[in-house]
Amino acid sequence: MKNTSGKRHQVVVVGAGFGGLDIVNGLEGAGVDITIIDRRNYHLFQPLLYQVAGASLATSEIAWPIRHLFRNRQDVHTLMAEVQGVDTKARQVFIENGSSVGYDTLVLATGATHAYFGHDEWEPYAPGLKTLEDAATIRGKILSAFEEAECSNDPVARTALQTFVIIGGGPTGVELAGTIAELAKDTLAHDFRSIDPRATRVVLIEAGPRLLAVFPEKLSEYTRRALEKLGVEVALGAPVTECSSEGVVVAGKQLMAKTILWAAGVQASPAARWLSAESDRAGRVIVEPDLTVPGHPEIFVIGDTAASKMPDGTFVPGIAPAAKQQGQYVANLIKRRLKGKSSEEPFRYKHQGNLATIGRSLAVIHMGRVKLCGAIAWWIWKLAHIYFLIGVKNRMSVALSWVWNHSVGYRGSRLIMRPKNQSQQASEPIELNK
Amino acid sequence: MKNTSGKRHQVVVVGAGFGGLDIVNGLEGAGVDITIIDRRNYHLFQPLLYQVAGASLATSEIAWPIRHLFRNRQDVHTLMAEVQGVDTKARQVFIENGSSVGYDTLVLATGATHAYFGHDEWEPYAPGLKTLEDAATIRGKILSAFEEAECSNDPVARTALQTFVIIGGGPTGVELAGTIAELAKDTLAHDFRSIDPRATRVVLIEAGPRLLAVFPEKLSEYTRRALEKLGVEVALGAPVTECSSEGVVVAGKQLMAKTILWAAGVQASPAARWLSAESDRAGRVIVEPDLTVPGHPEIFVIGDTAASKMPDGTFVPGIAPAAKQQGQYVANLIKRRLKGKSSEEPFRYKHQGNLATIGRSLAVIHMGRVKLCGAIAWWIWKLAHIYFLIGVKNRMSVALSWVWNHSVGYRGSRLIMRPKNQSQQASEPIELNK
Repeated sequence: MKNTSGKRHQVVVVGAGFGGLDIVNGLEGAGVDITIIDRRNYHLFQPLLYQVAGASLATSEIAWPIRHLFRNRQDVHTLMAEVQGVDTKARQVFIENGSSVGYDTLVLATGATHAYFGHDEWEPYAPGLKTLEDAATIRGKILSAFEEAECSNDPVARTALQTFVIIGGGPTGVELAGTIAELAKDTLAHDFRSIDPRATRVVLIEAGPRLLAVFPEKLSEYTRRALEKLGVEVALGAPVTECSSEGVVVAGKQLMAKTILWAAGVQASPAARWLSAESDRAGRVIVEPDLTVPGHPEIFVIGDTAASKMPDGTFVPGIAPAAKQQGQYVANLIKRRLKGKSSEEPFRYKHQGNLATIGRSLAVIHMGRVKLCGAIAWWIWKLAHIYFLIGVKNRMSVALSWVWNHSVGYRGSRLIMRPKNQSQQASEPIELNK
Repeated sequence: MKNTSGKRHQVVVVGAGFGGLDIVNGLEGAGVDITIIDRRNYHLFQPLLYQVAGASLATSEIAWPIRHLFRNRQDVHTLMAEVQGVDTKARQVFIENGSSVGYDTLVLATGATHAYFGHDEWEPYAPGLKTLEDAATIRGKILSAFEEAECSNDPVARTALQTFVIIGGGPTGVELAGTIAELAKDTLAHDFRSIDPRATRVVLIEAGPRLLAVFPEKLSEYTRRALEKLGVEVALGAPVTECSSEGVVVAGKQLMAKTILWAAGVQASPAARWLSAESDRAGRVIVEPDLTVPGHPEIFVIGDTAASKMPDGTFVPGIAPAAKQQGQYVANLIKRRLKGKSSEEPFRYKHQGNLATIGRSLAVIHMGRVKLCGAIAWWIWKLAHIYFLIGVKNRMSVALSWVWNHSVGYRGSRLIMRPKNQSQQASEPIELNK
């Protein structure tokens, strides 16, 4: 398949998340050259990120080098680089070292990051969970809070150190609250001498009227009760108006807490600005029914970066299965175009269901008319996630970690990693004996 | 066992390396209260650190939370804190949050860090390998060099990116050189499109006349040949006189290299300064034959922090088995003293042997009259290290990683982690279409 210059058709995919990978997979054997660009060298299995934050899984158990995934695909060129912009006229993607990559078809699948609803100054106090570094940072914050409490003699400081606030009652907030509660009340229960980890407060704050707003009300209510049984305090209809190093102000009241985690909102990556395209409030590019950018049939935007309206007027949700379906759709569309077929079916999202876990033995599932909760849902969740992991080694490794976590409550990744400047040099000693 | 104030005898151990852990283990049931202080929350299995740097093992596979190891020991209090100094008159250890911990017996087992022989300005260009953060940094540097080479169009820059220099021909230097050569020529061989990883240069530089100076000459020579077979260039009698962002100057000649690793020297931690005690050139506290500090029979210094002279005038080597023997010796000495026994045997080091690996299937072993090299030595090395790892889960996990690495050449931890400031925000886009 050649383009006008006699070269094979050049497809550039930016972002190696679920959508990006499925485009590359879908274009196997299509006779095109593919360049996949990501600022990381790995694909991240984001649905399990909270388990890294909760010290149950190691960072490398949920991440795979992109170029290793495509090592047998001679048609795929992997570049680790930060994209700086796109020249849509010259059809060039600019990368950080000053060079550029030309395309015939461009797909932007660059995902999303946290949003603080106009309160970016909260970020240092309330980190969000989107990257592997975020997960390692949050893991370190949680574990350090217990360590500092153990070293402290001040009961007020200890209480603040043993209070964990999670803002946002979606799946990530529910999963973080459950895993921290179990960490405190089970994994760490007997590891301290001066403090009692079981006295830890975990507070899950949601501004809306219920948890897991996309699930049926019955499952939201089940989730709230299940979390409360794990010892989590759930505050509903409770907007946060202040985050600081001291804690949060929620529903007008100050709550002292040294650890605040943000699971409340997302913001699309800057793809819309690269294209000077129209975007919605969350920064997502408003795409045509075939996921192209208006006026640019050669540019697709998919996944969390795209605002794709469904026939009922709502938008395709920002979840992994939606990104995968969009990736597969775009791969097929590119192949049809290359074969000269003109009729294009619009993208149709098939909702397969929603899943969320509550701690290490319960889950809720909503698939069409099926509503499941409890241990059976949890087994389905585990098996589904093991299935979607990439590679036999990782499946065995994650299964081993889960068996250990579930049977003996052991969490294998309880590491507090320090940034370079803290870790390298011992501080100057106080010379008391001179 | 009570001290003069009616409390149980208070033992404070600073440092949870091999020596520190063995003291705590040896004091089980001795009727004393133990406080173990470390600035990390984990014990690190340092002999396998180079495998984390080489992306074969995950960080959490070689580190265990200290307080988890002692969760069933009610006599052990674990504190994660940086020690600021020691008041030897008031018998107090000062920690970072301003509080202090009193002791009747103090053991300093705080290890060592890299030394640049008066060239501390080389550190940013030639990082050493002592901590888990060091290993993650080196892993990121190595993998990033290949990624940058793949993005570059400049052949001179590519050559420098594909040149790796390791300074220091001891076990760590040999292990790093072997693992990088195999990474380039095997693991990564088919993963790139613009560069050929097999064209990578790995240069191991040693100022002395041979590699592995503590081994018999025959094994040094075997190691050199085995490394050269893996594609490593070995430069002996070659002192480095300059390290910079461009590369090194070795034996008067400039060698362009973007990645330089330091495996040449160590410097003891500041324990001598805390005590205002006499130290040797490497900063190690000069200890009595019973490992106490002169004039302070209640203070022991062990492991890499101590200069402990043997009857033949040489010093106990800075290796894990020596630290473990010293830890066991000090634990027994404390128990004898508490029982009122006065005669003290001096510490006698029993040298059990030296081991080093060369890549993933060869090793050299020297134990008394036994000199082994090749695949048999490698099997002994692997089994010994699996045996000394802590916990069934970690043994299974490391074994699984090694089986995968050995059979399919897969390295599961090829992650480039970025520091927070680089990772969090996308850089400002160039708006080309306005």
